[in-house]
Amino acid sequence: MADAYGELMAFMRDTQALASIAGRLDWDQETVMPRGAAPQRAEESAALEAVLHARRTDARMGDWIAASEAGATDDVARAQLRHIRRSFERASKVPASLASELARVTSAAQGVWAEARAADDFAAFAPTLEQVIALRREEGAALAQGGDVYDALLSDYEPGTTAAELEAMFGALRPELSVLRAAALEAEPPAPLQGQFDPDAQMKLTRKLAEAFGYDLHHGRIDKAVHPFSSGSGLDVRITTRTNADDPFNCIYSTIHEVGHACYEQNIDDAYLLTPLGSGVSMGVHESQSRIYENQLGRSRAFTGWLYGQMRDAFGDFGTADEDAFYATVNRVHDGFIRTESDELQYNLHVLLRFDLERALIAGDLTVRDLEAAWNDRFLADFGFAVDKASNGVLQDVHWSVGLFGYFPTYSLGNVYAGCLHAALRRAVPDLDRQLGQGDTRAATGWLKENVQRHGGLYEPRDVIAQATGTAPSEAPLLAYLKDKFSRIYAL
Amino acid sequence: MADAYGELMAFMRDTQALASIAGRLDWDQETVMPRGAAPQRAEESAALEAVLHARRTDARMGDWIAASEAGATDDVARAQLRHIRRSFERASKVPASLASELARVTSAAQGVWAEARAADDFAAFAPTLEQVIALRREEGAALAQGGDVYDALLSDYEPGTTAAELEAMFGALRPELSVLRAAALEAEPPAPLQGQFDPDAQMKLTRKLAEAFGYDLHHGRIDKAVHPFSSGSGLDVRITTRTNADDPFNCIYSTIHEVGHACYEQNIDDAYLLTPLGSGVSMGVHESQSRIYENQLGRSRAFTGWLYGQMRDAFGDFGTADEDAFYATVNRVHDGFIRTESDELQYNLHVLLRFDLERALIAGDLTVRDLEAAWNDRFLADFGFAVDKASNGVLQDVHWSVGLFGYFPTYSLGNVYAGCLHAALRRAVPDLDRQLGQGDTRAATGWLKENVQRHGGLYEPRDVIAQATGTAPSEAPLLAYLKDKFSRIYAL
Repeated sequence: MADAYGELMAFMRDTQALASIAGRLDWDQETVMPRGAAPQRAEESAALEAVLHARRTDARMGDWIAASEAGATDDVARAQLRHIRRSFERASKVPASLASELARVTSAAQGVWAEARAADDFAAFAPTLEQVIALRREEGAALAQGGDVYDALLSDYEPGTTAAELEAMFGALRPELSVLRAAALEAEPPAPLQGQFDPDAQMKLTRKLAEAFGYDLHHGRIDKAVHPFSSGSGLDVRITTRTNADDPFNCIYSTIHEVGHACYEQNIDDAYLLTPLGSGVSMGVHESQSRIYENQLGRSRAFTGWLYGQMRDAFGDFGTADEDAFYATVNRVHDGFIRTESDELQYNLHVLLRFDLERALIAGDLTVRDLEAAWNDRFLADFGFAVDKASNGVLQDVHWSVGLFGYFPTYSLGNVYAGCLHAALRRAVPDLDRQLGQGDTRAATGWLKENVQRHGGLYEPRDVIAQATGTAPSEAPLLAYLKDKFSRIYAL
Repeated sequence: MADAYGELMAFMRDTQALASIAGRLDWDQETVMPRGAAPQRAEESAALEAVLHARRTDARMGDWIAASEAGATDDVARAQLRHIRRSFERASKVPASLASELARVTSAAQGVWAEARAADDFAAFAPTLEQVIALRREEGAALAQGGDVYDALLSDYEPGTTAAELEAMFGALRPELSVLRAAALEAEPPAPLQGQFDPDAQMKLTRKLAEAFGYDLHHGRIDKAVHPFSSGSGLDVRITTRTNADDPFNCIYSTIHEVGHACYEQNIDDAYLLTPLGSGVSMGVHESQSRIYENQLGRSRAFTGWLYGQMRDAFGDFGTADEDAFYATVNRVHDGFIRTESDELQYNLHVLLRFDLERALIAGDLTVRDLEAAWNDRFLADFGFAVDKASNGVLQDVHWSVGLFGYFPTYSLGNVYAGCLHAALRRAVPDLDRQLGQGDTRAATGWLKENVQRHGGLYEPRDVIAQATGTAPSEAPLLAYLKDKFSRIYAL
């Protein structure tokens, strides 16, 4: 086994290094690349993708894996092999022609979607979306080999979790969130933030916040981009943010969110660098880190108390009277069409809408032709007002255009996991609020590093959460947390 | 032939795309990469380099080339095949073990050199330099196959040119430059530039200058880096510069120099994108473009007249009385140890010193042990004052540490070529000075694009210059230009 495993891991290490380069090219494209370079970059990325595909389906992989598995005795080797087998089998199940057709179609589809969104014209996007769905269903069927197609797609993002499990969790969440939402919206609303906030001062503050949350700028950097994201693993994990003079919370909370993702990647055990264990284990666990940083920590009464002082230092008196008023403003529940602009309370309702619609699309129970109407009906039912245009509705998110079916539910699963972790963190660090009130997140982020982040891909996603919290994941802690928080803010 | 050539070119296109990615990683490393990412980047670059090496020595290449050559009838195909054969044979002649040893040793040597330079301690670098030279001699011998080793190394940077040809050119240049230099230094010196120049205003001005010289920012960008450089080909050609509040000329002329390199890459015929013809044909021709932009155009009386106004707009009155005084200041001949800080008149003397020493090192006529003394003796003879410390002498340039033997002479060859092109340009555009005096470089850069840049690798280096100028390259035009220019400035 030793030789085969050694050869396999050396081969994987180079593959990971090349995959890391591909991620760096994407970062470059979204931040610094000259606009006119796009056609050349497409060829560069395609050439690298072809190299990666050849390596991922290399015939030697199967032999190495089989020879290694027989003798793998330690947990780390077994976990490495679990990831390697999963990705090798995935790559081998999908015909090369389908993989390249999917790459071609989704690459073009993103542009079609962007134009359709700008024109508020779903019909212009529908034929392309039909193509994408047909290809992803074909891929899902190849992966599922007789099993559930949606589950097969879901397992790309959240291995080991089924739609049925998620449905049970989300089914328990949705009615309670609806009731809470309605109550909050009927109560006296907190004042929204007013005024103008210098973008350079926002960037300066956001850097301070990133460092306060433990982001290591020696192994990272912060740039502006159209969409905030985190990119990379190991020793080079970069984040982006954006500034809007009207709305500093966009910059602040996007940054804290991405810092959560980035710290997960930065804090993985160094021994796993450039191996399959060296990245976050799933989208759901990843999102649990970004959301607990952003919400349970970053939007807490204690931390916002400290942040209020930081904002006054950065921007002067911006008209919010005191810490309590600021806390209510940060956590203001407000009507809106857009998922990414939603408050903590309503966010999951946006996600569950997409989860239900995309399962119906993949199952063939909903056609693309009927999708816009189905979206609008469901939105009216869940949010109580009508979608006014496609860019505020069915065209708002890029995900489906690039073939991300099975991805949306991991956002809410991440919130559920964040709820579980937060409850356990509160038990482990009883004076957490005292520390957060001083802008000190070290106990919190240290606990997350120790119990979640450092493991990288060592354990299965649900097991990471179960081990960290001592109990099976459930939506109950998230619900309890949201009820408590918003009942207090809105005196319900 | 058609099928083999088609397959070969498709294969080469992907190889070029991957090589382009490698260049982009280098740019990233020098500009934006977090410092702590270096160990991971080394693994990423090595993995990509291994992919490139495998492609460059791919056994199919030889068959494709042979099958293609038989039927290649048009100039473009023949030129593509000439480049492809040259690089395939080069890669095939060098044993893989030697190539990887060279990569390993030169990668580490750069760090050893940097530390030795910081400590002004040549002895600390000498053993490493001996290793580098031994490996490069071994490589040169493998490439030369009985021919001249130095010429084999030189042909990596300047194919088709021999050291003997360069020696004849440089031998004619050196005594004349020495006389001119001595005369200029004995004359009344122009005033140096005084004052402080806001770095942000320098960057703003430098952007304007870059665009004035035709640099296309839709396919490029300007960043700050420790060393100015140009990076990339085709649709994504980036440059870097640096600012020093005491010395805006450093930023201005570094930028114009790099813009010359970058415009060469940007202006190559689009049909050659991601092919062997899609990059500058040699270091010498490349340097001819950067130097003619920087010196014959950028430091001309006409252009500096316009630049004087731009600098006053950017920085206010900086104490230089008028355009004539400014022109003399820009072209001030001054003593100095450092090649890259040298003036146009003395620059080639710095290069010729290195050319002679490095040939002796490769031939075995000079040992590393005696190198520092040899450098210092020659410097005293050529410049009339003694080197005070190794960082001002033998340790000042990075080149030898990374194995660049045969590279230095291309700097002076570039100046010689720039001299030839400048003479031809003056004949082709009689009112050039009137245009440059208005900051309008379009006739000059247009002529260079049409006669040199657009061809990329289509013609051999000397042929590009000969075709553009109508005569074989010679040092005479450069010498005539320098004599004329500095005799006027210094009233010799």
